[in-house]
Amino acid sequence: MSDGACAGRVQAWRTRLEQALTQRLPDSDAEPTRLHAAMRYCVLNVGERVHPLLLFGTARALGLAEAQVEAAACALELIHAYSRVHDDLPALEDDAGADGRAACHAAYDEGTAVLVGDALQSLAFQVLAGDEALPASADIRLRLIALLAEAIGAGGLTGGQALDVEAHGRQLTVAELEALYSRRTGALLRASVLMAAECAPQAAARLHQSLGEFATALALALQIRRQLHMARAAEGRPSYPRVIAPEAMRQRLDRLYAQSLEALQPLGAAAEPLRDLARWLLADGPAARPS
Amino acid sequence: MSDGACAGRVQAWRTRLEQALTQRLPDSDAEPTRLHAAMRYCVLNVGERVHPLLLFGTARALGLAEAQVEAAACALELIHAYSRVHDDLPALEDDAGADGRAACHAAYDEGTAVLVGDALQSLAFQVLAGDEALPASADIRLRLIALLAEAIGAGGLTGGQALDVEAHGRQLTVAELEALYSRRTGALLRASVLMAAECAPQAAARLHQSLGEFATALALALQIRRQLHMARAAEGRPSYPRVIAPEAMRQRLDRLYAQSLEALQPLGAAAEPLRDLARWLLADGPAARPS
Repeated sequence: MSDGACAGRVQAWRTRLEQALTQRLPDSDAEPTRLHAAMRYCVLNVGERVHPLLLFGTARALGLAEAQVEAAACALELIHAYSRVHDDLPALEDDAGADGRAACHAAYDEGTAVLVGDALQSLAFQVLAGDEALPASADIRLRLIALLAEAIGAGGLTGGQALDVEAHGRQLTVAELEALYSRRTGALLRASVLMAAECAPQAAARLHQSLGEFATALALALQIRRQLHMARAAEGRPSYPRVIAPEAMRQRLDRLYAQSLEALQPLGAAAEPLRDLARWLLADGPAARPS
Repeated sequence: MSDGACAGRVQAWRTRLEQALTQRLPDSDAEPTRLHAAMRYCVLNVGERVHPLLLFGTARALGLAEAQVEAAACALELIHAYSRVHDDLPALEDDAGADGRAACHAAYDEGTAVLVGDALQSLAFQVLAGDEALPASADIRLRLIALLAEAIGAGGLTGGQALDVEAHGRQLTVAELEALYSRRTGALLRASVLMAAECAPQAAARLHQSLGEFATALALALQIRRQLHMARAAEGRPSYPRVIAPEAMRQRLDRLYAQSLEALQPLGAAAEPLRDLARWLLADGPAARPS
């Protein structure tokens, strides 16, 4: 399949997701209007949707229709948005926004940004627990919730954010840096492919393992790609440029990309759209944000 | 049953909860150690445990053993702790702590406090989804998750916090104030009794309604009790003292207490421990914090 076909599919998935998110967010006419408007501002028409794309791509590789995972895709994006809103706060990354798009705390205020993130997190679990558009059994829903909760908690994403803060100013090894990223950005990307696998009960356990390895390698490759495109690393913050030279970063990226494709071998030809997506994300696609 | 018996039971429930929470929080020796230590600081040996107490009391009224709801009690307290940590942040209530107990952001730092709250919220859902000590079917677990997620989201607790912020400096009517409290403190207290009811599949739907009405009235009564004991209302913040005189507050409290007991009538004599608990909370018990 061509990259053009992949780009078209990515566009279709994004359009579908946008509509699904719009339906699930609280109405900005309802009280508290400011909170609701801020939630919509932080989720709609923003972001690269890397996590939902990987979920849709994995679902396709496993023979699922988009409708079967649309609600799960929304949950992932709600979590990604919450994490970005809290990450941007002055007490954490202190990022007021870029590309003409103000961060939540800059467009609204810090208190609202805290509450927006909190409400987006619980909305994600609400969607997984009760959304009627998720045609999954109670057992599958529970496994989706358990997977997501574990991926974003102290053992996953939030723990990775804390490790990142704790490592400011310290010189890490590549192994330490990648252990940090494995939680900070890897955990939610792994959850994205594994949630799709949970929605496909016929997928063998060994495929879950392969998909997890695929996502782990791809997450690091995306991280390197993003840092190769950054003007400069944030001062004191752990990053590849502080540890290895640009040429070594490119070599590591190539190796990780190859690893991610190797991991997909057990899925055979069915995984072609997922391979296309990985290539597209690393080439034409967005440089994924760190959270 | 005497108040002494109730006080003894409260003590036993708190001890049981403390142990259950200790087991479920991440180890402070594991990385990231600072985040884990802060999570334990914010949950262990602190708080009045009003939500778990109401869950245990309701469970007893419905013939359930403590072991059947212990995990759900933990989830409630993790949520209560997360909400308190975020609420105390400078951008929201700006409360550095009281009674010799520093708030999370004062004992650690603001960034850690944001992450602690985030991680506690996801841990609560992780417990409900996967905790082996919860002897509930997948269907019941899902309903617990749906109930909790809805209670704490934009339509519940977090929405109530936003309404509170939006109402600063405005003069509310009693009805507006109580609509605000119904979300800000009522939603999680209602969820506490309703989660116990979900764990008792034999409890008829009409009992859920009765228990919900009980919790709604009790939540407002606890709010008034707390504000009668406050030295003074926070400047500009919506509160009963800004709306009605102390004598009218006492009358409203008595009326709400009576309503809460009336709501329990369909549960008959079995609800006696829950009536005792309501009386104890309003008399000898703690003045519940607003979130």
